[in-house]
Amino acid sequence: MTNSTASLSTKQLGVLGGMGPDATLYFSKLVLQHTPHACDQDHIRQKILLATQTPDRTQSILSNSHTHIQQSLRASVIELCRMDIDVIVAPCNTVHYYADTIQAAAAKTPFLNMINITCDYLSSQQVKCVGILGTTGTIHCRLYQDALEQRNIHCIHPSADQQQQVMEIITAIKSGDRSDTLSLQLLDQVNSLQSEGTERILLGCTELPLIAPDTSVLVDPMYLLAKASITFCCSKDPFKTITEDPKDIK
Amino acid sequence: MTNSTASLSTKQLGVLGGMGPDATLYFSKLVLQHTPHACDQDHIRQKILLATQTPDRTQSILSNSHTHIQQSLRASVIELCRMDIDVIVAPCNTVHYYADTIQAAAAKTPFLNMINITCDYLSSQQVKCVGILGTTGTIHCRLYQDALEQRNIHCIHPSADQQQQVMEIITAIKSGDRSDTLSLQLLDQVNSLQSEGTERILLGCTELPLIAPDTSVLVDPMYLLAKASITFCCSKDPFKTITEDPKDIK
Repeated sequence: MTNSTASLSTKQLGVLGGMGPDATLYFSKLVLQHTPHACDQDHIRQKILLATQTPDRTQSILSNSHTHIQQSLRASVIELCRMDIDVIVAPCNTVHYYADTIQAAAAKTPFLNMINITCDYLSSQQVKCVGILGTTGTIHCRLYQDALEQRNIHCIHPSADQQQQVMEIITAIKSGDRSDTLSLQLLDQVNSLQSEGTERILLGCTELPLIAPDTSVLVDPMYLLAKASITFCCSKDPFKTITEDPKDIK
Repeated sequence: MTNSTASLSTKQLGVLGGMGPDATLYFSKLVLQHTPHACDQDHIRQKILLATQTPDRTQSILSNSHTHIQQSLRASVIELCRMDIDVIVAPCNTVHYYADTIQAAAAKTPFLNMINITCDYLSSQQVKCVGILGTTGTIHCRLYQDALEQRNIHCIHPSADQQQQVMEIITAIKSGDRSDTLSLQLLDQVNSLQSEGTERILLGCTELPLIAPDTSVLVDPMYLLAKASITFCCSKDPFKTITEDPKDIK
């Protein structure tokens, strides 16, 4: 084994995770997989906080109870920033409803906003109509819809009944289910959105890529955030927009 | 999704990781998988430092150059302990050569020693002869051999030529190889040690479980450390010895 003499990474990545924790590890693995490396020392130094005690994001949004979750997020971000990180990411879609709280607590440490990164990517691909699968919290607070419409991208999300089924899939994943049955249920939702004319479908909840069926129509914001994190930590152009197609999503 | 009202974990787990980073994520996943949970909030709060810049452990041991790695470990442990952790673990076998350095830097925060946990487990199973697969550093510094012999367990490790092959397998895993060919090469090493009369074979390098063939003869110290971490963080008897057989190793 040889120590690397040319590590590309000069910056440290802070990961505000645990929402859920499996998804955080999936994100960190994407960062490892897509960082050029031949040995341990080539990898980006990641500081990962599994802040599992963070109140449920969907519940907080739907019940309009923001104080407790904002306090919890503030405390976690401050804890993470104490570890000399250069940039902060949160591999959870729904928590981006509180992006302003996170950025304010992070002070001068930049927060890479997964929603904006994803919408910028879709805009760069000249996509005109996108389907969104996510938690009821994410859909309800129009996290992706507003950001997409600002970029002149039309978006479609499941009906109320279908959204209930999407939420059941997400809850099952969080409780450890990774079955093919669940994956097929997700595929039904994908097919349904495609039949309405969507060009690409956003996996707008970080649990969904964990059981995603193998279809090129899907866009994984986690992959795009991982690529943006690597760009930030390793390149001279840290805020570059991701324009390549995430074909190696899985 | 419901918030848990009965989270078992009252303590926070500090993970000194990045040696290598894939193995760290594998360890954290084991902790998630084996923690009883129905939602995010049931999970143990983990603080994971991917200290990828830590100098190569095998090189440091073989070249008798300990100053640089000890400084690096001390700095990482102090950084991790600043995050209000209750216990520290290091999911890397070879780095346990520096267990005293880690424990000294951690001060009053207990360090769960993976080598001792593994050897205590084997002793509780009344195993008499164990094979060891690990880095040349781990074998050279008799990390497992001394701990096993203190418990009256005989141990066998590969010949110098075979050890060279084991090291090549580990280096290949670190560079991203997860092929069946590599897994078969590892199986050859397992079979060779078994032919010498070993009852169980220790995967004494954290990369090896990532490509481990499916055979019940293997003992994964990472699994035992994950179980010990859960016991520490969730139970009233934090230093309990693991006595169950790790059949669900993969």
